[in-house]
Amino acid sequence: MTSDLTDEAFLADFAELSAIGATAAGGVHREAGTEADGRAREWLRDWFGRHDLHCRVDAVGNMYGCAEVVADEPWVLLGSHLDSQPTSGRFDGAYGVLAGAYAAAAVAARPGGARFNVAAVNWFNEEGSRFSPSLMGSAVYTGKADADAVLEVVDEDGMSVRDALGRIGFHGGDVAPPAQSYAEIHIEQGRTLVDDGLDVGVVTSNWAAYKYVVTVHGEQAHTGATHMRYRRDALVGASQVVLAVRAVADEFGPDTVLGSVGRFITEPNSPVVVPARVRLAADVRALQAETVEAAHARFLERVAEIEQAGEVHVEIESAAFRPSTRYQDDGVALAGEVADELGLRWRTMPTMAGHDSVNLKDVVPTVMLFIPSVDGVSHNEREFSTDGQMLAGLHLLTSTARRMVTGALEAVPVP
Amino acid sequence: MTSDLTDEAFLADFAELSAIGATAAGGVHREAGTEADGRAREWLRDWFGRHDLHCRVDAVGNMYGCAEVVADEPWVLLGSHLDSQPTSGRFDGAYGVLAGAYAAAAVAARPGGARFNVAAVNWFNEEGSRFSPSLMGSAVYTGKADADAVLEVVDEDGMSVRDALGRIGFHGGDVAPPAQSYAEIHIEQGRTLVDDGLDVGVVTSNWAAYKYVVTVHGEQAHTGATHMRYRRDALVGASQVVLAVRAVADEFGPDTVLGSVGRFITEPNSPVVVPARVRLAADVRALQAETVEAAHARFLERVAEIEQAGEVHVEIESAAFRPSTRYQDDGVALAGEVADELGLRWRTMPTMAGHDSVNLKDVVPTVMLFIPSVDGVSHNEREFSTDGQMLAGLHLLTSTARRMVTGALEAVPVP
Repeated sequence: MTSDLTDEAFLADFAELSAIGATAAGGVHREAGTEADGRAREWLRDWFGRHDLHCRVDAVGNMYGCAEVVADEPWVLLGSHLDSQPTSGRFDGAYGVLAGAYAAAAVAARPGGARFNVAAVNWFNEEGSRFSPSLMGSAVYTGKADADAVLEVVDEDGMSVRDALGRIGFHGGDVAPPAQSYAEIHIEQGRTLVDDGLDVGVVTSNWAAYKYVVTVHGEQAHTGATHMRYRRDALVGASQVVLAVRAVADEFGPDTVLGSVGRFITEPNSPVVVPARVRLAADVRALQAETVEAAHARFLERVAEIEQAGEVHVEIESAAFRPSTRYQDDGVALAGEVADELGLRWRTMPTMAGHDSVNLKDVVPTVMLFIPSVDGVSHNEREFSTDGQMLAGLHLLTSTARRMVTGALEAVPVP
Repeated sequence: MTSDLTDEAFLADFAELSAIGATAAGGVHREAGTEADGRAREWLRDWFGRHDLHCRVDAVGNMYGCAEVVADEPWVLLGSHLDSQPTSGRFDGAYGVLAGAYAAAAVAARPGGARFNVAAVNWFNEEGSRFSPSLMGSAVYTGKADADAVLEVVDEDGMSVRDALGRIGFHGGDVAPPAQSYAEIHIEQGRTLVDDGLDVGVVTSNWAAYKYVVTVHGEQAHTGATHMRYRRDALVGASQVVLAVRAVADEFGPDTVLGSVGRFITEPNSPVVVPARVRLAADVRALQAETVEAAHARFLERVAEIEQAGEVHVEIESAAFRPSTRYQDDGVALAGEVADELGLRWRTMPTMAGHDSVNLKDVVPTVMLFIPSVDGVSHNEREFSTDGQMLAGLHLLTSTARRMVTGALEAVPVP
């Protein structure tokens, strides 16, 4: 039953998927391993079943919809992630999973000339909002993280990945299909394609980043009875850290360095207690590794200044560097060629945000595609791409996948 | 069975009470209406029973240990609160409740000359960390808050005061004993008595305060894909508010104005999401109302400057003013007289922190006593007062209560 892979069916299915964990403002709230994530996963498993894709679930909850068309050969994987940030948009990740599923089913329905098998994939916990770090499922798949260690990661309420996956029925035992190559399509989450009036982007490299986990230590005290000169206020110190990250980004001029603090937890967090500790997650990003290293150095200098003031101790618990690396040139050329054939307006561009493809490209030839985000809004319920933009991307992914299955990226070396 | 009201028994009982909800670092974690608060309350109810004090529990969980020695006359109340801040000290509140219970039982055992009845009291939710605002039980008792409204207040997890009290078995139906006067003893929570080498303090007035609930509004976005110029980062704005409060306190010079932000909640609080909103609780305090009004005005000016920068909207949801008012002079004179009789070194002083007595003094003659806090540390597990300091305070409270029960504050006018 693969006759319904029409544009209309895609849009109808996307609307159905978007209703799972939907928010009143048009977004979704579907963090990894939650009940809403579980329902989205069940929906996808049903979809796989109705389109002759055999569903496998591995130990860390990655889902594969497999069409084995050439026995014992490796797999072209096509996918993204169904999990979302809290109160976020309905396109981020979910669009790419559904497009991957449609492309895989279309290739499987007419597999003429296939040299490899094809599978759609939904990676577990790309977002990293509930369980840290992000890109979790693809990190295990590519051997960058250990499955047993990942399963022990706990959320703020102390629930482990293992228990969360077990509870929603997606702590699987299947062997993951070995990849020959990978393609992913995603919303841009920035304004480049919109500003340039283009249909699609072909990603050439990812921005470099430093991601920090920081604890600011002060001394718990009474807000109403402790004189200012005796205070060691962790929240004052942490606020200085937040503004230091912003100042570092500003120092480098427009559009060069991004810097933010996203997670910020105050303890004990009572109206009349001077905070004892603040735990925060910061990041600093730039296209060039040298730039992000320079920003990192400036951040450390500013942290040292905050500590020298003597009120708080700023502990940088971890500073994880993500290098800027290139997507394989042959994959970029292939996608550009297909885009030209389809009459799409396109450009090459880096990705500022992280994606599962950043992990995959280190182990297999990987193609990363973008469609425009209206106003560049993302991680926000107002995130939006038009039906036409989604369908143009779907066609590009499907045609690129056909070429990959017939061996277009067979001889591409991986570093 | 009231023969065991010795100093040794008091210290043993205080150790037993301190073990309920104890933390490894020597403090307690016993927020209002929690299971640990429930166990402390059961312990107190048992103590009342063993010392012939009849326990009444009113609708908002205030507990009274009543000795009716003169039928139909009003009551001298002696007490404080058993609830604590999170991971806080074992002396704050609990010392005053146990001292009140010992004093009440001692007076009841030898009630010669009594013109009034006597009761120990444990006020519900003095701290206000779990359920806001603070001084909740005494506010209902003194008619400043409505019991039904208070019972609907919910904590961060959505549990109401009504349900929390019901769950621990302290949503009572008893009539509260009407007060003729009130006395409370508490740790100072500052360093004045320690620095001056004194045994006790007699409180003459409370500091004035502004307490704010503020929401900073930004726009949720992707930390990795949103250019800095498009950001409206609520956490950056809220950090500026935290530093504005600090700057206001610093502006007024040493020991004049206190200012802090204690509660600070970031939403959606994901490592890769630019925060959409921060909710925070701030306070600004000073001895003189004029000073706190001036600090309030400066805070509003600084908030306006933050808003003018254009990145965030700072909504001041409420700004509650607590005036500085005096404890009745006759009560101060009485306590000083008794302290002299007992050979204690004492001084008069204002209270910087709020106490239930701040509510009570507006409706009945009220005596507020302090014992020293070693190093002035409070709302911290390191909070400490010595056995000798506690016993000196207990003796002062007991002797003062005897004088109150025999009518020492009978003719004192209340504003």
